[in-house]
Amino acid sequence: MFRTHTCGDLRLSHIQQEVTLAGWVQRVRDKGAMIWIDLRDRYGMTQLILNENSSENLKSIARSLGREYVVQVSGTVIEREAKNPKMPTGEVELLLSEINILNSSEIPPFTIEDETDGGDELRMKYRYLDLRRNPLKNNLLLRHKLLQTTRKFMDELEFLEIETPYLIKSTPEGARDFVVPSRMHEKQFYALPQSPQTFKQILMVGGYDKYFQIVRCFRDEDLRADRQPEFTQLDCEMAFVHQEDILNTFEGLTRRLFQDVKGITLESFPRMTFADAWKFYGNDKPDTRFDLRIHDLDTLVKGHGFPIFEEAESVVGICATGANSFTRKQIDELTEWVKRPQIGMKGLVYVRFNEDGSLKSSVDKFYSEDVLKTWAEAMNAKPGDLILVLSGASTPVRKAMSELRLEMGTRLGLRNTQEYRPLWVIDFPLLEWDEESARYHAIHHPFTSPKAEDLELLETEPGKVRANAYDLVINGVEIGGGSIRIHDAALQSKMFDLLGFSPEQAQAQFGFLLGAFQYGAPPHGGIALGFDRLCAMFGGTDSIRDYIAFPKNNAGRDMMIDAPSLIEDAQRKELGL
Amino acid sequence: MFRTHTCGDLRLSHIQQEVTLAGWVQRVRDKGAMIWIDLRDRYGMTQLILNENSSENLKSIARSLGREYVVQVSGTVIEREAKNPKMPTGEVELLLSEINILNSSEIPPFTIEDETDGGDELRMKYRYLDLRRNPLKNNLLLRHKLLQTTRKFMDELEFLEIETPYLIKSTPEGARDFVVPSRMHEKQFYALPQSPQTFKQILMVGGYDKYFQIVRCFRDEDLRADRQPEFTQLDCEMAFVHQEDILNTFEGLTRRLFQDVKGITLESFPRMTFADAWKFYGNDKPDTRFDLRIHDLDTLVKGHGFPIFEEAESVVGICATGANSFTRKQIDELTEWVKRPQIGMKGLVYVRFNEDGSLKSSVDKFYSEDVLKTWAEAMNAKPGDLILVLSGASTPVRKAMSELRLEMGTRLGLRNTQEYRPLWVIDFPLLEWDEESARYHAIHHPFTSPKAEDLELLETEPGKVRANAYDLVINGVEIGGGSIRIHDAALQSKMFDLLGFSPEQAQAQFGFLLGAFQYGAPPHGGIALGFDRLCAMFGGTDSIRDYIAFPKNNAGRDMMIDAPSLIEDAQRKELGL
Repeated sequence: MFRTHTCGDLRLSHIQQEVTLAGWVQRVRDKGAMIWIDLRDRYGMTQLILNENSSENLKSIARSLGREYVVQVSGTVIEREAKNPKMPTGEVELLLSEINILNSSEIPPFTIEDETDGGDELRMKYRYLDLRRNPLKNNLLLRHKLLQTTRKFMDELEFLEIETPYLIKSTPEGARDFVVPSRMHEKQFYALPQSPQTFKQILMVGGYDKYFQIVRCFRDEDLRADRQPEFTQLDCEMAFVHQEDILNTFEGLTRRLFQDVKGITLESFPRMTFADAWKFYGNDKPDTRFDLRIHDLDTLVKGHGFPIFEEAESVVGICATGANSFTRKQIDELTEWVKRPQIGMKGLVYVRFNEDGSLKSSVDKFYSEDVLKTWAEAMNAKPGDLILVLSGASTPVRKAMSELRLEMGTRLGLRNTQEYRPLWVIDFPLLEWDEESARYHAIHHPFTSPKAEDLELLETEPGKVRANAYDLVINGVEIGGGSIRIHDAALQSKMFDLLGFSPEQAQAQFGFLLGAFQYGAPPHGGIALGFDRLCAMFGGTDSIRDYIAFPKNNAGRDMMIDAPSLIEDAQRKELGL
Repeated sequence: MFRTHTCGDLRLSHIQQEVTLAGWVQRVRDKGAMIWIDLRDRYGMTQLILNENSSENLKSIARSLGREYVVQVSGTVIEREAKNPKMPTGEVELLLSEINILNSSEIPPFTIEDETDGGDELRMKYRYLDLRRNPLKNNLLLRHKLLQTTRKFMDELEFLEIETPYLIKSTPEGARDFVVPSRMHEKQFYALPQSPQTFKQILMVGGYDKYFQIVRCFRDEDLRADRQPEFTQLDCEMAFVHQEDILNTFEGLTRRLFQDVKGITLESFPRMTFADAWKFYGNDKPDTRFDLRIHDLDTLVKGHGFPIFEEAESVVGICATGANSFTRKQIDELTEWVKRPQIGMKGLVYVRFNEDGSLKSSVDKFYSEDVLKTWAEAMNAKPGDLILVLSGASTPVRKAMSELRLEMGTRLGLRNTQEYRPLWVIDFPLLEWDEESARYHAIHHPFTSPKAEDLELLETEPGKVRANAYDLVINGVEIGGGSIRIHDAALQSKMFDLLGFSPEQAQAQFGFLLGAFQYGAPPHGGIALGFDRLCAMFGGTDSIRDYIAFPKNNAGRDMMIDAPSLIEDAQRKELGL
């Protein structure tokens, strides 16, 4: 080893010891008689010192050091005169007897500090320098811990880690596949997995009972800000289980991760149907850290001559607790906010519930205080609250109200980043009608089972069939989802039929699974959690890219290695391309 | 859950308990008044029973069960009359009160038994059935345990698990890449990694100090029996270390795995130079479970008029301990064996060292007993031994002798499968001359550092430069290898130059690494272990395919899902292919 200790090790107990460290020069402060050097490695920072007794030769070496030089230094640990309580090594410094320059460094294109002056593109290109910064380092340390804790938990529950192939078969269902041309089989392609879905089901048919894997998945989608063409998921499957067994197992995992990694004991994991999530929150991943539920007001607002409400398909409101303190200007801002194209509303109606019990609305012309009182009662409003009402076509208005609810949560400080509220959203619809292709699409995927009590509806009203499907949602973020699968070949074939597969297509693409179902498939189900997203949630930020060592940019490009890139002609020809 | 216990759980302590099991029907034995069913799941097998008091209805259900039906059964645990000491559950059986058929099964195309009647191709196609067999199940359980134990050890040593990208850049050096066409960047391709080599070095430059990952790698090679286009490796890198630090670390891992997974305490991990391995064993991965070293006999055999030896570039011998018991017929067989095209020798000379001390050779015409005595002395032969001698051009004869040595080890029972002899082979050559391309190739890879004391030879005799490279060998199998890397940009550029890269090519392909080396790269090195091979070694067999859940066949094809396959025209067009 080039060192006896790391830069995070030294304490008062090491005083007078001769030690050797190695690391990067964070900075050099030269005061003539004294020179201080901050030496950094993964484990911390240690202050090195040269004093009036140090040789001029050593000092001249020290003066030659630039930022990010790599050095090996030896010396004696001494107590600092001016201690730094913010640094774990802040009570000591190393009086140098030797400096060995292991490598020099150009001046970095941005500062290696917690707050850097480098822009996104530059930091992506010089990722190896950005990775030296504490915020990224801490993210990767967090990810490491989540990886180990997750596997430990799964192993304790006798889940088997089984690796599934990356060179598989392309299937047109779902997102676009990345494909890999085969050199040995002309004109044929492998595909990279969007998920190991069929393989984990095959493992259940193979009797493996409980499977998990932390696995890379690939989707060739047009990238949005927070999407990566390759991403990591915790992928799991269990046999001989009911839905609640799976929810309880992964509730257990989530609890363990929060406990062991963040020291947080989570409270309850309520279950909420998709129907209720839509009704009360206007989306399928409610942030339940705060209430402000959506109320349907149609029966209360119609018949009073206000043309906008009369003509609206749906009128919905929320009661923003304590928001009557908002000024007129703040409410005007909110009105502008809901009119933005992303929200798309024409306006915002409000009712102030004053401290004196009086009610005052922006539509007083049409609604008497007595009518407003019926609204307040329906919404359980109290003096000091502010009622906000939107109207329009029912789906868009509900989505807009969902956004407004989140915005009000933020403005009222109700979205505490230190608070975690998990939730299972259950009973998702099985299918949705797609106008463009004029057929049903699977909301989860084609292997999700319909609820037994809705089976008959498959024939008559497929859109109304509920699935044994569930999502894990924390603070309004979807962390993962899964379902109880179909394990019956006939039902699976019927599902492919409903989704527009001809029997031949189904056979060509999923013949192996239909085949497997002929040989004793057990009841089974599973879940997949987005691991990058989970890390970001634990890190308390939104950007998954900051939790991936080498992410791609929004154009799917690795800026550091400059990929994708042209390949050699010989290579292309060999592949028959 | 569909069960209260697994099929491996029940013991005498459960007697009289009402339990529910779920699993697969292994077999049904119908004796009229009594019916026995063996029920199997991942955890074991339990005997179910219906007796004279069982209802006819239940018996008729039991009689309808076929092999591999999936059932849920309830009943009372009772003590068996005829106990089966070979089964963990063999003291009890379950007297059934209920049978619930969860799924039926076609008759499997081969038997689900430890010894099956299915051929390779059939079992590959129906992998989900093959996976139900104990031998494969036990292999995957072993692999799970090796995965967990490996990560636990690495975590304890503060190695960080960091995931590197799968969509990277194609580099013509090394084996052929699998490539992935980019839809968003016309005519450009990603490549799948042959290993995360450059990324782990970048992580060292980024200050991560100790990295590990159990990661999939890809090589588009013409497949041999025991190669897979995708394979798993344990990939590691450390900064601020010397070669011995890495060897000691991975000696530690190997010891821990043998201890925790097999309960075996390994003895020493000797270091052997590549030069010695070649000299004494004729290859770079000696099986050191037995001695039978190769001796150079030229000085002893020449000058006696035996034309074959006189003309030979090299004459080598081994002393096969105790093999004088071989009959003439056995020696003739050996002679035929070395004449096989795979070995390619013209003949075999032998010397019998009889129990009475006399020496008798197949070349007595040319060599007196006194001369033979000098051979025996040189090889430390004892009465009862058999000396085997080969001659020819020096490289092929040494390779042939290496094979003969292994064959004799096998025939003499010296290759005990319960014994494990690890070994580090060190000081590999850095480069080898390739006649075809008329340039040097890197033996390990272009990032391996030359030994400091051989640096000057780089200019004069590059072929003689030794590398800081090492292989971990156990029982003659290469488990992994690594090197101390170059961390100096100038030396790395020189190496690219020696390997025939123009500066522009080096920049285009490895510019990011050369760039990273400008910003304070620490000394670093690492290793990669073949994880599939490691599993096979622990399982005691040769075939890595049996330790992979879903392997490809020798044509790189997944027989179960039938991949690679044609893709849709629209898909190809979108990719510009």
